[in-house]
Amino acid sequence: MTATPASTAPAPARPDTERAGLEAALRETVQRQLHPHLRHIAHYHLGWADAEGRPTGTRGGKLLRPTLALLSARAAGGTVADGLPAAVAIELVHNFSLLHDDIMDGDTTRRGRPTAWTVFGVPHTILAGDAMAAAATSALLDAPLPGARPAATRLTTATQRMISGQSADVAFERRDDVTLPECVRMAGDKTGALLGCACSLGAALVGAAPARVERLAAFGEHIGLAFQLVDDLLGIWGDPDRTGKQVGADLRVRKKSLPVVAALNAPGSDELRALYLRSAPLTEPEVRRVADLVERAGGRDWARTEADRRITAARECLDGAGIADAPREEFLELARFVVGRRF
Amino acid sequence: MTATPASTAPAPARPDTERAGLEAALRETVQRQLHPHLRHIAHYHLGWADAEGRPTGTRGGKLLRPTLALLSARAAGGTVADGLPAAVAIELVHNFSLLHDDIMDGDTTRRGRPTAWTVFGVPHTILAGDAMAAAATSALLDAPLPGARPAATRLTTATQRMISGQSADVAFERRDDVTLPECVRMAGDKTGALLGCACSLGAALVGAAPARVERLAAFGEHIGLAFQLVDDLLGIWGDPDRTGKQVGADLRVRKKSLPVVAALNAPGSDELRALYLRSAPLTEPEVRRVADLVERAGGRDWARTEADRRITAARECLDGAGIADAPREEFLELARFVVGRRF
Repeated sequence: MTATPASTAPAPARPDTERAGLEAALRETVQRQLHPHLRHIAHYHLGWADAEGRPTGTRGGKLLRPTLALLSARAAGGTVADGLPAAVAIELVHNFSLLHDDIMDGDTTRRGRPTAWTVFGVPHTILAGDAMAAAATSALLDAPLPGARPAATRLTTATQRMISGQSADVAFERRDDVTLPECVRMAGDKTGALLGCACSLGAALVGAAPARVERLAAFGEHIGLAFQLVDDLLGIWGDPDRTGKQVGADLRVRKKSLPVVAALNAPGSDELRALYLRSAPLTEPEVRRVADLVERAGGRDWARTEADRRITAARECLDGAGIADAPREEFLELARFVVGRRF
Repeated sequence: MTATPASTAPAPARPDTERAGLEAALRETVQRQLHPHLRHIAHYHLGWADAEGRPTGTRGGKLLRPTLALLSARAAGGTVADGLPAAVAIELVHNFSLLHDDIMDGDTTRRGRPTAWTVFGVPHTILAGDAMAAAATSALLDAPLPGARPAATRLTTATQRMISGQSADVAFERRDDVTLPECVRMAGDKTGALLGCACSLGAALVGAAPARVERLAAFGEHIGLAFQLVDDLLGIWGDPDRTGKQVGADLRVRKKSLPVVAALNAPGSDELRALYLRSAPLTEPEVRRVADLVERAGGRDWARTEADRRITAARECLDGAGIADAPREEFLELARFVVGRRF
């Protein structure tokens, strides 16, 4: 499952009018671009409608990535309206990946509801994902702004990296020799690339200088990695009340998460390897033993240190992007929301 | 299954050097853009490698669409090199759709070999399709030509129509009330849009006047429809030696092909509707009876007449595109190859 912040609250700090404008733009693009059958699936998946197509009356998802995209447009001197095509595009790509990931992973629930493929079948859900990906590119290319072409290039490059990361993740499940650099790279591709794109796409669209765009992208990519590390730590030692996950949840499914891979590659990991890489399920005492072995092998410390390092690096990138204090503070607030701790 | 000309020969009339350049450009893009796991699937699907990744030593597919894209660049005054990004992009989109269609349709063979999803599994094959779609957009956007942005817009729009057509096709399987205009629109979206794009994408990329680009697109779209009509006729009354299909093949699987839908919507189709729309399999005498009823209801004549009408319209569009005699003749030769009869 693609990682997202554990909180289901909307992204903070933005006025309701901005969120309303974002949802309206997203709906308009889906309406204009998608075939009615696929639109129905998109409405369901985005939380706007139930399986029969009736409006749910509830708000959609967190809209974290599009909020970052709008902020990056404003940070580069553009208006909210200028940034909307970037915001729509990034949210469509994110949701295209969720639709396909749920099929690939065989996941049956998302955001507390049955996943789209379980409701509409695999064929139409593959197509709905394909249609959202194409609509994302169109949204950018149709924008009447000189940065549309470089922005579309950034989005497509980030999409390709996200797909590469997902491919590596699927392949890791069957491998016993995943190295830590490989695993970091996978997380950077799968989670970091799209978050980096979200933080820079609006700026690229309004024609910001390439150096500023790159700094914003690097900021978002470091935040994405820090988020993944924190999420992986919570997946082993987290508070179930806060995360909605059982303690040890990731260990029970033998996820090759970052702290685990760090530990598997540390000296003296023979007992851990023997337990974690065998095919028989782990008993509950074994799950606790694995958590202990990962910690003893330094996996927990490594992940905490690496998360801190990424957060420091993100701050440095943001400071180097040369943006005004107000949008800088908003980026930091969103980063705190993503990483889930003081930033 | 997405329709392609019955012949497996390469598209005619182009020198070997052009085909070699096309394959080299396609390989280079796949190599540069795709994750190694997904590259492996692409190489297999494109016929370059076997399931273990060993080179097959055989040539890939017909390369019809990229040949048309290169021709459209030359017809608009560009070089073959100018047209290559368009050729690569259109072939990648075509093959992305084949990879996903084979999963959706549950097809187990393509071009005489097991389909990719049966060899590499559904998850990686979904991803390989996604990666090829993203690589197609990148190939165009990276082209150092002023027409890159409008060309990418054309490709994305055609891709969205292709997806819409596939969605309609899947939905038709469960409907008894498909109208002829709906069916024509589905075929135009599913088959016509990408062929129209192939015939115009190179011209758009080299900056041809929009009116010329539109004429070339309309030419290709009419050819696509004519091809689909001819293919549907062969699927009912075709010569198995020529088409590789059994006579009545499309009827046995109750395909809602164009001649059948024309007949189902004609007056006095009660017997046909009763046979064709029931759930029990058709016996061989019933298959022959259905073919007879489709013909009596005018389905065969309608499809022949409509194919002729499309061919005439295609010629008119080509004549109106104002291109030189040599590329015009090449377009006509390729059209003859696609439609499989005198043009």
